[in-house]
Amino acid sequence: MFQNFDALTDPTRGADRVAALREKLASLGVDGFLVPRTDEHQGEYVAACSERLRWLTGFAGSAGMALILSDRAIVFVDGRYTLQVRDQTDPAVFSYEDLVANPPAKWLEEHGVGLRIGFDPWLHTTGEAKTLREALDKAGGELIALAANPLDAIWNDRPGPPLGRVVIHELQQAGRLAREKLRDLATVIATAKCDHAVLTDPSSLAWAFNIRGSDVPHTPLPLGFAILSAHGEPRLYLDARKLDMEAKAYLAQLCALRAPETLIADLAGMASAGATFGLDGGLSAEKLRLVITENGGKAIDSPDPARLPRACKNRAEIEGARAAHVRDGAALCDFLAWFAAQKPSEVDEIAAAAKLEACRAAAGERFGHPVLDLSFDTISCAGPHGAIMHYRVSHLTNRTVRDGELFLVDSGAQYRDGTTDVTRTVIFGAPDEEKRRRFTLVLKGLIAISLARFPEGTRGMDIDAFARRALWSAGLDFAHGTGHGVGSYLSVHEGPQRIARTGTQALKEGMILSNEPGYYKPGEYGIRLENLLVVTPPAPIAGGEIAMHGFETLTLAPFDRRMIDTALLAREELVWLDAYHARVLAEIGPLALPETKAWLEVACAQFERLSA
Amino acid sequence: MFQNFDALTDPTRGADRVAALREKLASLGVDGFLVPRTDEHQGEYVAACSERLRWLTGFAGSAGMALILSDRAIVFVDGRYTLQVRDQTDPAVFSYEDLVANPPAKWLEEHGVGLRIGFDPWLHTTGEAKTLREALDKAGGELIALAANPLDAIWNDRPGPPLGRVVIHELQQAGRLAREKLRDLATVIATAKCDHAVLTDPSSLAWAFNIRGSDVPHTPLPLGFAILSAHGEPRLYLDARKLDMEAKAYLAQLCALRAPETLIADLAGMASAGATFGLDGGLSAEKLRLVITENGGKAIDSPDPARLPRACKNRAEIEGARAAHVRDGAALCDFLAWFAAQKPSEVDEIAAAAKLEACRAAAGERFGHPVLDLSFDTISCAGPHGAIMHYRVSHLTNRTVRDGELFLVDSGAQYRDGTTDVTRTVIFGAPDEEKRRRFTLVLKGLIAISLARFPEGTRGMDIDAFARRALWSAGLDFAHGTGHGVGSYLSVHEGPQRIARTGTQALKEGMILSNEPGYYKPGEYGIRLENLLVVTPPAPIAGGEIAMHGFETLTLAPFDRRMIDTALLAREELVWLDAYHARVLAEIGPLALPETKAWLEVACAQFERLSA
Repeated sequence: MFQNFDALTDPTRGADRVAALREKLASLGVDGFLVPRTDEHQGEYVAACSERLRWLTGFAGSAGMALILSDRAIVFVDGRYTLQVRDQTDPAVFSYEDLVANPPAKWLEEHGVGLRIGFDPWLHTTGEAKTLREALDKAGGELIALAANPLDAIWNDRPGPPLGRVVIHELQQAGRLAREKLRDLATVIATAKCDHAVLTDPSSLAWAFNIRGSDVPHTPLPLGFAILSAHGEPRLYLDARKLDMEAKAYLAQLCALRAPETLIADLAGMASAGATFGLDGGLSAEKLRLVITENGGKAIDSPDPARLPRACKNRAEIEGARAAHVRDGAALCDFLAWFAAQKPSEVDEIAAAAKLEACRAAAGERFGHPVLDLSFDTISCAGPHGAIMHYRVSHLTNRTVRDGELFLVDSGAQYRDGTTDVTRTVIFGAPDEEKRRRFTLVLKGLIAISLARFPEGTRGMDIDAFARRALWSAGLDFAHGTGHGVGSYLSVHEGPQRIARTGTQALKEGMILSNEPGYYKPGEYGIRLENLLVVTPPAPIAGGEIAMHGFETLTLAPFDRRMIDTALLAREELVWLDAYHARVLAEIGPLALPETKAWLEVACAQFERLSA
Repeated sequence: MFQNFDALTDPTRGADRVAALREKLASLGVDGFLVPRTDEHQGEYVAACSERLRWLTGFAGSAGMALILSDRAIVFVDGRYTLQVRDQTDPAVFSYEDLVANPPAKWLEEHGVGLRIGFDPWLHTTGEAKTLREALDKAGGELIALAANPLDAIWNDRPGPPLGRVVIHELQQAGRLAREKLRDLATVIATAKCDHAVLTDPSSLAWAFNIRGSDVPHTPLPLGFAILSAHGEPRLYLDARKLDMEAKAYLAQLCALRAPETLIADLAGMASAGATFGLDGGLSAEKLRLVITENGGKAIDSPDPARLPRACKNRAEIEGARAAHVRDGAALCDFLAWFAAQKPSEVDEIAAAAKLEACRAAAGERFGHPVLDLSFDTISCAGPHGAIMHYRVSHLTNRTVRDGELFLVDSGAQYRDGTTDVTRTVIFGAPDEEKRRRFTLVLKGLIAISLARFPEGTRGMDIDAFARRALWSAGLDFAHGTGHGVGSYLSVHEGPQRIARTGTQALKEGMILSNEPGYYKPGEYGIRLENLLVVTPPAPIAGGEIAMHGFETLTLAPFDRRMIDTALLAREELVWLDAYHARVLAEIGPLALPETKAWLEVACAQFERLSA
């Protein structure tokens, strides 16, 4: 299995470890040290050797930071983890702050008077370091880049770096030769008036070189760096132990393969020759900027040049996504059909998540396209757990689904031809009116995004409220963005595209995004409905003047008909829903197991025909 | 009359004036000089003595800048003025650039290699000066703040500064004592850790001191400055000739009255004592920052503290706006009824604008609330002129309205209790299907904004696309924001609130905004429908959880029923429209002239009742 349901951590070790770290800090002459959850690459998932925050504190969430001072140890987490951090860490050792309302920089500006705070410049972006430095400046303190991470010095049984095998991402899936991508990137670097750009995001490496890896959970990434040049051969810094002969031969055609340990020396050498580097201030480790500027080079804040072309999928990638979604939809329908046949209180969250993974595995075998990983740990929620937006079930929290309760399942898989991410919320037994009404309002939001047409230049932030309008009018809302970008057999959370208040990136042809409005009633239930979409090219509209983008829906699985109050749907919404269900039946039906097929026919029944 | 229809300028003087300016520049040792349209206060309207751009070039638009070099003279204008600038200036003297795509800073960065460019630091904001300075730095040039404006030295018949009488804005309209507002502003300044804030926006002066003036067209502003202090008496810099005994006595209770000429010396004195000043970098003249920093003071970029409280109207201001809109609506209905009785080709744009102003004047007399000014020159457009978004009719362009054409009229007035701004588009004769369909799509946009409910923190940019959704789905759009802020017997264009892609300000209770989607078919016709709205306080919704803001519509005038294709309206849209028309009839009917009343009853007829 690609996931487990173990309680992840042990809060009892925090006291000793913090004490050992404090001793080390005293010997270094600093008053405190920052321990972020991120690694050198700022990805969502990190390798075991980079789980420093978890090792030190016990906290196993996907975002957070600790600040260890001589008399205080603070864990900063966001609203998702307010409860979890208290369960997973020792409150006698740690206090807690809100990562969003009162982040470390703000806290230090107020409380860090005169403090010398150490940080590992590999683990903080240039943007972050700048914010921290300015905050400490205001407090009369100082931010000090440490030459080595003091936590690593006391972490005796620290795992080694991951050595996941690197595989070639074939042209059939990638749609474009790495050679061509690298040539385009060189042009972008030249246009930005840089000599080089350092790629620090493994997604950019994977995309640019058409390779995939397995260094972190759930995302097929090879950890590494690259230096691309406006003129001259790219340099790829990857541990050679990850490469078999084939991969080595392939990469040798594209670039100079270099050992990761040589990156700093190479940068220093190029910098001392006066080179100008583009670094993405929001992604790139402060360490790189320091090395470049300290050696006489110039560092320019410039977006990762692979970010935007990676986000805009080409025809092969879109074809792959379509195919992966049909097969993944068949697997999800197998699960939903099975789930519909269960009795109340006889199925629990872990059983459901395990069954769903088994359905995906079986379908993968059946269709000859194996599941290579889940794209994230399945979010399997019975009743009130559905209101916890990033709930991860463990044996400690596992809950059966009871009669009249909603079951919310948010899951996805990694296939060679695409990454999936889908959420459905279904009822066990009979729904009450409130649940049905709110489910329908969430569905109206999903449909509003699905139907949207919009001109070139429209940003995700411009249409985010389409998903909220019906909820707002009913006095309801949801506290997350409507959609995130999704990679192509890459990260399930990919930038820069997003549909959210913060979505400043224009939506462009080929971008894949999630469309996942929700509603959450704390302590009672949660509703989330999620399809993946691909932005369609601008197309003329009869009687109009401007060619408009739109969305093609990739995800195929029915919405629970019992939860839909059609009286709340406008005519065009009902037409969309019926057409969507007809399409699900037409595309999944032929691939479905017999028992799934029978369920699917009922699940996809047309509303209009029935009411006529 | 508050407007005239004269062609404003004469393009023949440009050559001589530019030659004289060049001579002056040579004597000052600079290679070029920037002539913006703005004055020291960055307002939309400027006094005659500040019409430097118009005097030099002939261009009479409301935004633009000239760059005079030894061998070139360039006028930068935005898309609204591309044609107009060529009519009003001499193409043998001037070339033209796009103010948005290629603004002066960008142009100088590319072409200003080694140039020493002079500017008048009174006429550019700190933000603008910074952009220009950075651009010239990159080009190896230099931006030089000139001690006196060289254009003023050659403008022999330059008018004197305006001396419009200052009047007290009574508590009944203002709703809050100036003394209390000034006390609150002092707290804001202290919280921002400043000793003082310089108010440079006359709207802020007018609001904070509860005064109005008449120094510029169409906006009741007294030009002047103020220095507010965290601790200590405000200083108000106004020409004493504008003040009668009553105003002088009133203001003497609130502040130290100072002559405008003493502002710089006062700032320099306070700065040399080490004071910290808050200056709004987007509003405040660079001159002020220079004086402060050159004399040892500290200047902090801090938003004008009056901006946000001014935007959030209090109960008296909202009551005033409601009353002003009922009376203004009655006047507009008198005009619309008159217009409906005209024959094709017998009424022209000037006659219509003049009649509308006469209706407002007559209604003002009738109701005992005289029109104190128009809030802008009436935009009166027949047929294809409607597609020119900021069309100003003159005797040169005046056009009769022909059979089957649309007539678009965008107008407003200044009353003691409120500022109005309303657009209606009506058909002369029978509409064709395309016009009706597009009119209805624009109306759908207006209704979508009118019906919106939204949580605290929602910004104008979050809902702008509500006004576009129906148009986008039909392959149409409009190239302006959906709405701007409106002052309370102040500027008809007021920040920071707006409904637009650029609307980053959260919409707050009491803000007044326009709601004016449109559609423009160049060379054929234009449609714009505009109501003013006030943001309502968060209110609970039955069955919901979050109290939601919404909009109350202030403007009262029917939409042309002949232009509405009800088949395109959703049920809730039709309900809104019928309710709006019923409200117009109920509120305007009792005030209407007899012939208007008869027209109004037909114009406000219910769609639902008719179709039943």
